[in-house]
Amino acid sequence: MPYSSSAVERAVTELCKLPGVGKKSAQRMVFFLLKQSPQTVKDISTALSELVYKVRFCSICFNVTEEDICDICRSEKRDRSAICVVEEANDIWALERMGDYRGLYHVLGGVLSPLDGIGPEDLRIKELLRRLDSVSEVIVATNPSTEGEATALYLAKLIKPLNIKMTRIARGIPVGADLEFADDLTLSRALEGRAEL
Amino acid sequence: MPYSSSAVERAVTELCKLPGVGKKSAQRMVFFLLKQSPQTVKDISTALSELVYKVRFCSICFNVTEEDICDICRSEKRDRSAICVVEEANDIWALERMGDYRGLYHVLGGVLSPLDGIGPEDLRIKELLRRLDSVSEVIVATNPSTEGEATALYLAKLIKPLNIKMTRIARGIPVGADLEFADDLTLSRALEGRAEL
Repeated sequence: MPYSSSAVERAVTELCKLPGVGKKSAQRMVFFLLKQSPQTVKDISTALSELVYKVRFCSICFNVTEEDICDICRSEKRDRSAICVVEEANDIWALERMGDYRGLYHVLGGVLSPLDGIGPEDLRIKELLRRLDSVSEVIVATNPSTEGEATALYLAKLIKPLNIKMTRIARGIPVGADLEFADDLTLSRALEGRAEL
Repeated sequence: MPYSSSAVERAVTELCKLPGVGKKSAQRMVFFLLKQSPQTVKDISTALSELVYKVRFCSICFNVTEEDICDICRSEKRDRSAICVVEEANDIWALERMGDYRGLYHVLGGVLSPLDGIGPEDLRIKELLRRLDSVSEVIVATNPSTEGEATALYLAKLIKPLNIKMTRIARGIPVGADLEFADDLTLSRALEGRAEL
């Protein structure tokens, strides 16, 4: 046992389960924790275990929440006529950080991916359709991957006949990036989506 | 609150305390954990909190251990005539992983660094001197930084008069690296430490 402590060994193994953490990073983290006050380590440990028994998913939009219905769905300040469809709940975190969007969300729980055996019935599409009564715009904010695009098209085909405006977030050159280094598809999308000045 | 859950918010904040983890990595970790089984998350949380009440430092060499004296100091298979001096306990993990060294260790708890106000009395040098009775070789394996080198020289000045062999781990070109990209000081050390074939 290289660590001469099974607790250290276990902590390294457990931290390796986290995404982006290899054995060396895990060792570095454990050694860092060993040098911290017991309270610091307990705080981290408690915060993680609280994720298990406090967090669940909103029964309307499937965002993470601690109640039955999430803050966004409950808020009276949000525009209930717009729903932004995202792949996963962490996409909501990114959009909320921006702070510009005031509508509601809907978490699909993935994207259509026939190769992985994920069809429409595996996503929360039925739940989305049930929410469309007083909605005038559905913004599809799935990732600009092949699967994300396919899912957007699939949703458009379902929802457009209901006379609801369907929009897709713009794909183009990221702000601050260099035209020279943009890939062909991104450039093509940027040109396609050009707007009048 | 962008996460619409204070537990998620707290978990992100707490994970940010770990070395090498920024806000985005922490969000990614939390989101990953939310998708795992409760048991997986509990295992990680428990492993961290166990670090606090299980792990302490060996009263002889200051390695991490769960007993009063660490596995290495207790082992009858180790060569008690050699002590390898390292900066921190995680350096022992690296050396033990290699598996070639069969002697004992001593963790200094840092290196001499006058600029940071760290003098000899802040390191476990007295404790090292007390262990030298039946020791024939002290290998200084502090990092090859200015402070590490200074600490090695300081230890040599203290211990050499006791008629104990003092050695320093070789500094040179890392295995697999390219001469062309080695810095001047490393090249100079590699030439200085050349060995007959």
